[in-house]
Amino acid sequence: MGAHHLEFKGRDIISIEDFSQAEINHILNVTAQMEPYAKGGSDLLKGKILATLFFEPSTRTRLSFETAMLKLGGSYIGFAEPDVSSARKGENLADTIRTVENYADVIALRHSLEGSAKLAAEFSKVPIINAGTGAEEHPTQALIDLYTIRKEKGKLDGLKIALVGDLRYGRTVHSLAYGLAKYNVELFLVSPETLRMRKDVIQGIKNRIPVAENVNLEKIIPQLDVLYVTRIQKERFLDAAEYAKVKGAYRVDLKAIEKAKKDLAILHPLPRVDEIAPEVDNTPQAKYFTQVWNGVVVRMALLSLVLGAVS
Amino acid sequence: MGAHHLEFKGRDIISIEDFSQAEINHILNVTAQMEPYAKGGSDLLKGKILATLFFEPSTRTRLSFETAMLKLGGSYIGFAEPDVSSARKGENLADTIRTVENYADVIALRHSLEGSAKLAAEFSKVPIINAGTGAEEHPTQALIDLYTIRKEKGKLDGLKIALVGDLRYGRTVHSLAYGLAKYNVELFLVSPETLRMRKDVIQGIKNRIPVAENVNLEKIIPQLDVLYVTRIQKERFLDAAEYAKVKGAYRVDLKAIEKAKKDLAILHPLPRVDEIAPEVDNTPQAKYFTQVWNGVVVRMALLSLVLGAVS
Amino acid sequence: MGAHHLEFKGRDIISIEDFSQAEINHILNVTAQMEPYAKGGSDLLKGKILATLFFEPSTRTRLSFETAMLKLGGSYIGFAEPDVSSARKGENLADTIRTVENYADVIALRHSLEGSAKLAAEFSKVPIINAGTGAEEHPTQALIDLYTIRKEKGKLDGLKIALVGDLRYGRTVHSLAYGLAKYNVELFLVSPETLRMRKDVIQGIKNRIPVAENVNLEKIIPQLDVLYVTRIQKERFLDAAEYAKVKGAYRVDLKAIEKAKKDLAILHPLPRVDEIAPEVDNTPQAKYFTQVWNGVVVRMALLSLVLGAVS
Repeated sequence: MGAHHLEFKGRDIISIEDFSQAEINHILNVTAQMEPYAKGGSDLLKGKILATLFFEPSTRTRLSFETAMLKLGGSYIGFAEPDVSSARKGENLADTIRTVENYADVIALRHSLEGSAKLAAEFSKVPIINAGTGAEEHPTQALIDLYTIRKEKGKLDGLKIALVGDLRYGRTVHSLAYGLAKYNVELFLVSPETLRMRKDVIQGIKNRIPVAENVNLEKIIPQLDVLYVTRIQKERFLDAAEYAKVKGAYRVDLKAIEKAKKDLAILHPLPRVDEIAPEVDNTPQAKYFTQVWNGVVVRMALLSLVLGAVS
Repeated sequence: MGAHHLEFKGRDIISIEDFSQAEINHILNVTAQMEPYAKGGSDLLKGKILATLFFEPSTRTRLSFETAMLKLGGSYIGFAEPDVSSARKGENLADTIRTVENYADVIALRHSLEGSAKLAAEFSKVPIINAGTGAEEHPTQALIDLYTIRKEKGKLDGLKIALVGDLRYGRTVHSLAYGLAKYNVELFLVSPETLRMRKDVIQGIKNRIPVAENVNLEKIIPQLDVLYVTRIQKERFLDAAEYAKVKGAYRVDLKAIEKAKKDLAILHPLPRVDEIAPEVDNTPQAKYFTQVWNGVVVRMALLSLVLGAVS
Repeated sequence: MGAHHLEFKGRDIISIEDFSQAEINHILNVTAQMEPYAKGGSDLLKGKILATLFFEPSTRTRLSFETAMLKLGGSYIGFAEPDVSSARKGENLADTIRTVENYADVIALRHSLEGSAKLAAEFSKVPIINAGTGAEEHPTQALIDLYTIRKEKGKLDGLKIALVGDLRYGRTVHSLAYGLAKYNVELFLVSPETLRMRKDVIQGIKNRIPVAENVNLEKIIPQLDVLYVTRIQKERFLDAAEYAKVKGAYRVDLKAIEKAKKDLAILHPLPRVDEIAPEVDNTPQAKYFTQVWNGVVVRMALLSLVLGAVS
């Protein structure tokens, strides 16, 4: 890692754990520089092609990447569904990558299989950006979350942050926890019994930052700087009854944030279903749609960095 | 509406009824100005992004919008199928819009739900263009029809126009009827019993223009200036037998137009199935493929207007 | 054909049989000229639009065409799946073409029906490029194969070439056989009994070049210059047991090429399943991923030629 320090050209973005605090700070700084391009457009990546290979559908993430590329003057190719791809004909991922690297200058990969981004990076001549793989990794979302927190609070160090909802199956919350653990924050975990964060993840971050488990949201809310809410994903449950039981729990509404700080920042990776009541949308604390904008800007920074257009 | 008169920047295109005759005339005039750009390209919307959100598939309309944007030097993102979108994860339309407004400068929305474009416009910071919603509204198609008629006949006022086929379930025919009612035309309705235009629609236009219901096409054809044929859509029928019965009825072939004026203009919003015989395609009266070209030009005008590139 | 000699502007690319050796040589020469544009980009087709109409999914071919257009400074519209198209509403191909010709400057068509590209060309005002139709024609793949062979071996005439695998159902192998028959090559056919090349195809090429049927690969391998392997496509079999039986047969692994020339070129149209062992990928003889790159360059040449940007 030493030699790669602050060198991003040609690098893959596979896991938030691959980056030092200094590197993450650099990505966030470059992101801030991208804001005017996000508003006014640019020709920074003119002639470059992004391939969005989404073996698992995610309209939001796909469109965010494609928008980022367009705003940099580049263009995109890709697919949005697994069954549209050659995978149907039995092709393996390595061959798909060794094909698409002939078309695109950078590849954003979404895949349900753990480790698929890492595998793709081993075969690819062009940079791979992990756009969500398996149940573990969603590094660009973690960077968006970190950027949003830093933009809203002016800093990361010293903040009290609660993660609420499904802390077991959501890939964004894993990547975020690892990302936050690189800073001097205090973490509070709020979730139903069956959706608690896995022991190994907690252990991995507890060595670095204070983590309070099994927290009661009502008690902790007055001291929080950031409230990070996640969707309880139906598709992660094998049992529909179990889903119904926890779905409504840990819902954030006006009453829940009654005693919160005025400058609390409420985040959510979206899409949401019932976890945040619509009445919260109009509060000054709601930052989850700002997060969407930040998503484009962060991805502009990543694309520019790995393609060597900025350094 | 007064203050907005002839001001299009930032406006939504939801319903043909939202526009005065003066405003529609202005759109048609701007469309005429777009013809050279449609042929030779332009950079009028360079750096701008259109999102085509098609919750209901319509290749024709989607490609028409995307082509319009490309010919203006802009680019597009989007999806063509509902199941590719976050909707599958339970997200509501308002959240989708508040997400996509961070990606795109203008949104074209196709949706099966009545009122969805209006709802989207309430939440969106960027202009919404209704690309077909519910069974009622398809304002851009109506503008295309009006532009085609004006281009072919040199005027709208004073024309005798027959609407033929499915006048009950087709959304284009509703928007067109309301659009035509803003001009001094005479309308003839030709349809099977079960597919007659709804009473409330007829009432809405009868106050403004003469409407002859339950017309026999053979009798009226010699005096017509415009023959507007619509597809009898299988998917609107619950009963297959009922569909089979009316499918072949009111078919336009060479015999049907034998006594028509030489400069009759035959229009159809397409796709057609059996309503117009292929033998009609080569007659000088067939204008339904010209209509497709006009579709691109009209949408170029609308995109340019709502984005403030022309006024 | 005489008048069209070396004149490509406005021409359709339907079948490899429509082109003389001189014309194919010209395409391959123009392809070679495109290599720097493929690497560095160009504005040769700025403002031009390609429509990729894929009624049958083929991610690889679709992305290759779209990449080719982007690298020439153009853009694309299209669909990747039959059910997304108006075809679902019962529209016929002729109407689809007469619609899309109003959107695009050139159309790449993929369709399961024999003769569909020819039909499309009859109705279209803009050039049609056959991107794979029926079981017979895939002319752009044949041109890619010819270009790859010429690039790797420096020539086409005088080469000994084996076609291995499914020679009956694969459309690429038919187009390639007809293409090779225009040159002075020696052909060896290697396939299971049930997948032998059809009699009429063999007859068509046997008149022009020497063809050895029912060849044993092991015996012939030492003299080969090119080994062209094809996928045994599951979807071509009605009987799963039959598929299982031939699937593993005629597999190319390190042992199979042990006695091959050092400069043997192994080609495959991809995607592959089991026909070539992964261990072969790292041999200097493996050229099937180079073929993918060549695919983009050949399609750049074809788009530029039929749009009259080069001659």
